[in-house]
Order: sequence, then structure tokens, then C-alpha cells
Amino acid sequence: MSSQQHFTSIEKILSKLPPDDYQNIRNVLYGKPTSKLDLSDAETKANDYDLELVSCRFEASPEQLRPPKIVRVGIFQHKLPLPPNTPIKEMRDGLYKLAQNAIETAAKGGVNIFCFQEAWNMPFAFCTREKQPWCEYAEVAEFGPTTIFLQQLAKRYNMVVISPILERDEVHGQTIWNTAVVIDNYGDFLGKHRKNHIPRVGDFNESTYYFEGNTGHPVFQTEFGKIAINICYGRHHPLNWLMFGLNGAEIVFNPSATVGNLSEPLWGIEARNAAIANSYFTCAINRVGTEIFETEFTSGDGKPAHKEFGHFYGSSYIAAPDGSRSQGLSRDKTGLLIAELDLNLCRQVRDHWSFQMTQRLDMYAELLAKVVQPDFKPQIIKK
Amino acid sequence: MSSQQHFTSIEKILSKLPPDDYQNIRNVLYGKPTSKLDLSDAETKANDYDLELVSCRFEASPEQLRPPKIVRVGIFQHKLPLPPNTPIKEMRDGLYKLAQNAIETAAKGGVNIFCFQEAWNMPFAFCTREKQPWCEYAEVAEFGPTTIFLQQLAKRYNMVVISPILERDEVHGQTIWNTAVVIDNYGDFLGKHRKNHIPRVGDFNESTYYFEGNTGHPVFQTEFGKIAINICYGRHHPLNWLMFGLNGAEIVFNPSATVGNLSEPLWGIEARNAAIANSYFTCAINRVGTEIFETEFTSGDGKPAHKEFGHFYGSSYIAAPDGSRSQGLSRDKTGLLIAELDLNLCRQVRDHWSFQMTQRLDMYAELLAKVVQPDFKPQIIKK
Repeated sequence: MSSQQHFTSIEKILSKLPPDDYQNIRNVLYGKPTSKLDLSDAETKANDYDLELVSCRFEASPEQLRPPKIVRVGIFQHKLPLPPNTPIKEMRDGLYKLAQNAIETAAKGGVNIFCFQEAWNMPFAFCTREKQPWCEYAEVAEFGPTTIFLQQLAKRYNMVVISPILERDEVHGQTIWNTAVVIDNYGDFLGKHRKNHIPRVGDFNESTYYFEGNTGHPVFQTEFGKIAINICYGRHHPLNWLMFGLNGAEIVFNPSATVGNLSEPLWGIEARNAAIANSYFTCAINRVGTEIFETEFTSGDGKPAHKEFGHFYGSSYIAAPDGSRSQGLSRDKTGLLIAELDLNLCRQVRDHWSFQMTQRLDMYAELLAKVVQPDFKPQIIKK
Repeated sequence: MSSQQHFTSIEKILSKLPPDDYQNIRNVLYGKPTSKLDLSDAETKANDYDLELVSCRFEASPEQLRPPKIVRVGIFQHKLPLPPNTPIKEMRDGLYKLAQNAIETAAKGGVNIFCFQEAWNMPFAFCTREKQPWCEYAEVAEFGPTTIFLQQLAKRYNMVVISPILERDEVHGQTIWNTAVVIDNYGDFLGKHRKNHIPRVGDFNESTYYFEGNTGHPVFQTEFGKIAINICYGRHHPLNWLMFGLNGAEIVFNPSATVGNLSEPLWGIEARNAAIANSYFTCAINRVGTEIFETEFTSGDGKPAHKEFGHFYGSSYIAAPDGSRSQGLSRDKTGLLIAELDLNLCRQVRDHWSFQMTQRLDMYAELLAKVVQPDFKPQIIKK
């Protein structure tokens, strides 16, 4: 799929169609039309910092008893600013600089909740299966350097910041976790969530480094809405999405790191299906760029050893409970997507579609309890 | 969205792009390339009967111990051949003729398993909320006229036929159900499945006519593979899809009837996401055309009374466990999609992605048992 690395986005290609055709295909592929935001201040900053900037507004209907519940989210996809094997301190400082630029730009765009990609402050080095130096990137969620760095920015800009990192749990045997830290808009540590589903596929050798999360499906009550984080591979698991919804999430972020060969045709489907099925907003964020390591590794696919993970195709996007979605960020650039959401849309869609009332959860609770028994007999009808 | 009724398909629009652009966008939107089948005999028949014919081959890798497990499925979307208020017997005879043509064409194309759209042998009259004459279409699943009619064709063509109808249960108080009848390739009644999730949205006033199904999530073991049927609105429910997978389905048919205003942007997402999440094939079949009734009805949307349901947009398609999908049938024509599947792909994708091993079903069984309790406390983290 290497030729695929050379086009910028689906939307750029679609825009070449004649206007009528474009309109028809857009309506089917992207759902109810959305508008752009006026972001002139943020645009200036984005130009200064060489960040792609995309915006989108999802509207809800006016109601008689509830005022609109407007929130702006910013999702950020970025390339490594330095080669993967750069000394850790230097790499982290480079990433902090990039993060500061992005958050400053988001603040100019009025962003209330900001989310980075998975393991944002390090190379996605799990392909190598080397423990060192990569485990050195792990830090304590509650007071590690990245949390402290972001707390200052969160407070300064009155912004909730979601920071997916590699966590070092010093209390429990120095274990490592894939964790999202939530910092509130006062700069306080609000909580953390550990990735629930760990891949065993391709070069995603993450199960060598950390285990399935033990923090459940927390929903974080912020001043701007109820949010949750479904980290990366969890997006393939409808039950994971479901539980965040049952706990009351209005926005679920999906910080990810995934490459073209493996998952690109799935990318536009899964987080969007979750938004539809669970009547909440989903924000799918993918890493971008190609990371080339110093030592070679194999991929369990019969091919020779090599040094690069493949192309992280970006294409971060936001999907709404009514099935509409934003344009994506590009497949090849560091960029920021700012979207304005009216969270009233969540309940409006619930009233409209009634998925929550028609889902027969009691039946499935009983059925799953049977399925997990070792002597489970599938319901099969044969002659 | 009425202007949308006037274009034929997404694929026709995309084909206007320059070849390189088309290739790039196709790879992302449709996944791993599929090929067409050589169907010259079926094409002749399709021309005779004025049916659109689309074909697709999904391949799997060769294995050492298992031979390929090849099956051809045919999914059929059709307009009513007569106005909705045509006397029932006459309407049914017209539909039987159409069905015979379609099955004969499918037989020429080597189809092993054939599936109609939802409530295929009647107008989709639930929008009217009139009980008569529409309830007269209901018939006994086991030996009603439609089952008897199709048993002959199934036997003649050595073809499994799935027949979604309105069922009359004479044993249980003359109750009515939305049911899919499965007839095996010897012409024998193999079993039935009743729609699990009933909509309460738009003009889909089905809950006025029938209740949630009580037949569980049966998988039918046929000579050509293990199949299940997720009827229409059940496609919005990830747990419904999940249970068919847990019971061992290799192909899940989704006979539907849905209209543009309501669901078109969701159509390409949901059945495809189910194929990905559950590592099986899904066959999404939608009714096509516009049905105009004699008496007017309102739609609960503040608009004046009217006589038509809106445009059933067809666009039937098949999705594979690896996330690839076929071209769709058109948005405006009666048509047959014949696809060749290698069912070995299901287990190959399971081995590759490991979704079934990583899904932590035991955790979700416990969680759902808690969620359904009246005093359930969501997991919310706040200051």
C-alpha cells in the first residue's frame, strides 16, 4: 500500500468531483451537513506553527427547557519532531514544544477539551520489542513530568487536557500500563483510565509491555461535559464503546496509533459506528507519519527484517450521534481539528432513534453470562 | 433529500474520478480489492428480466489442512411490481413472479444461499398504521403459501432460501411477528427467526403490529455454511450482531427496509462494522423504490399528511470480516448481487486480529448484569 502514502486525504480527492456529484456523495458518506467555524486567530497561530487546521460545527435543535450545551473539542495528531532514537530527554522536550504550540493554537480557537494521540510523548516503539530504552518513557500518571507540564497549560488556558501516555505504576511493582490521564481545566489531576483491550496483531507487540487495563470504564465529569477515553484497539470492541455509553459519556475520545496496511479501511467505520450505536460523539485520533528505528525488527509476516513501522495515516475525525461526521485531518501532516458540539444532540438522538430503549440489555446480560461458561452450547438449528 | 433520489449509486459517481484518485479512494473506502465473477449465463437472464446484476469475489488465503470453503450468496432488492393497494392475491402473485425470475437468475449464477429483503412479499405498509388489509399478508411460517412457493424453487435449484415475511402464529393467539423463514436446499423448512429489535422511529410504526422476537439468536447449519439473520433495525444493535457471532455464524444476512431521510449515511457503516467486529460476512439488503398508499398518514414530524413512505434507497452490499466490501446495488433499481465468499476468511481474520480472544467477555457479562439493575450506579469520576 506504499502508493497510498502519497495522497493527502479522501476529502481532497472527492472535491475534484463536479458540484452536484460532490453534494450527493458527501451527503451519503458524511451525513447531515456541518459548517466551519470562524477561527481566524487560531489560523494565524496554526500558520506560525505549521499545523494543519480543520474545523467543524455540529448543531442540535433548539429545546424549550434546556439551553444549548456547547463545547469545543480539539484533537491533535502529530509526527515525531525528531528521529525515534533521539535521547529521551531531548525527544520529550521537542514533543513538549509541539504540544505547547498545539494547545496555544487550540486556546485561540476556544477549545475546552483537548486530546492527544495514543502514547503521544514518545515514539510508538512497541514494534521493536526492545524494553530499553523505551520503558524509560513510562512515568507516573499522577505526578510524572508530562502531567506536570500539561497541568500548567490546562490551567493557563482553562482547558481539560487528555494525555495518553505510558504509565509507570510505582505502587504496584513498577508495572507499566497504557493510560490516558485527564487533567481538568483548573490544572488538577482528575483521574486516569487504562487501555482495556491490548492488541496481538502485526507489529503491535504491546502485550509484551503491558496488560489489559483494570480501571473499568470511567466517565469523567468535567465542566464541559461527560467524557471518556477508549484507547486505540478498544475501538474494535463494541462492548467497550457500549460500557462508556452506559456510564453516561457524551464524548468518547479514541486516541490511537495505527498504520495503513493494517486498518485504514476500518478507520472511518468503527468510531463512527460507535457514535451511532451509543448516541454520543466520538473523536478518533490517529498518529501520523513514518517512524524509522535504528535497529531492525521482523513483523511475523514472512518478510525480511526492516526498521520502519509503516505509515501512520492520520485522518483523525469526529463523528456525531446522528451519524454525521467531520472532514478528516490529512493522512500526512501534523494537524489540529477543532469542532464545536452541541451535547444536547446526544439526548435528542436517543429520543429520535430509541436505541437505548430497544436494546434489550437484560436479555444480553443473561446471554453473555451463559456464553462465558466453559460448557456453553451455541444456539444452532440443523436438520 | 429528495434530490438524492436522482443519482444511481456512490460507485457510479466515484468512477468519474481520475484513475489514480479512484484507486486511492477505492482502497480506503472499500478495502482490499475484490474481483468480479464470470456470470455470463446469469447476465442473460438478468437482461431478460430487467434486473441489475452485480458480482463480487472475496478470496481467502490457501491453507494446508483445510480446503477452501466456497459459497455463493445472492441478495435481492426489489421494487413492488404493482401499486401498494393492489388486491393482496394479485400483489402476491406479481411478487412471486418476480421472485421466480430472481431465483432462476441466481441459479444461473451458481448461488447456494439466496436472501430477500425484509417483508419481501408485501408493501412496507406499517407507515399507515392501518391493520387492514395489511395484516392479511401475514402467514404461517411453516406452511404458508410463500413458504410452500419457495420450497419448490429451493429444491429445484438446490438453494437455501431465506424468506423474511410477516408471520401469523396460529398457535399463540393469532399473534403477528416479523420473521425470517429458512428453507434448506432440499426444499425443507429448516427453521425461523423472529426480529429481535423493533423500531420506534419515523414512519416505522412496526411496534403497532408486532413485538420483539422470542426466538433468540439462532444460527442455521446449512450445507453451505452457518448462517443467521439479523432483521432490519437489529443492525443498529451491536449486541444483536455479537450474539449471532457467538453462536457461530459465518454469514449474517440483514434484510431491511429503510429510507433515505432516516438512515442513508448509516447504511454503509453498520453492517460493515458488524462484519469487522465479529469476523463474519454480512449481507445488507435494502428495499428499493417509493411506495405510495391510497390513504394519507402523518409522520409525527409536524408536516402535513401525505401518502408516500419516502425513498427506499436500495444500495444492498456485502461486507467481509477483513473490512472489505462489495460494490453496492443501485439506489433505484431492482437488482441481484451475487458474491462468492471463501468462508475460511472468517477464521483467518480471527487468527489475525484476535478480537475474540481480546474481547474480555467475562468482564462485560458481569458489567451488564450490574447495569440492568434498577439501582445501577454509573462509574463517574468527578472532583
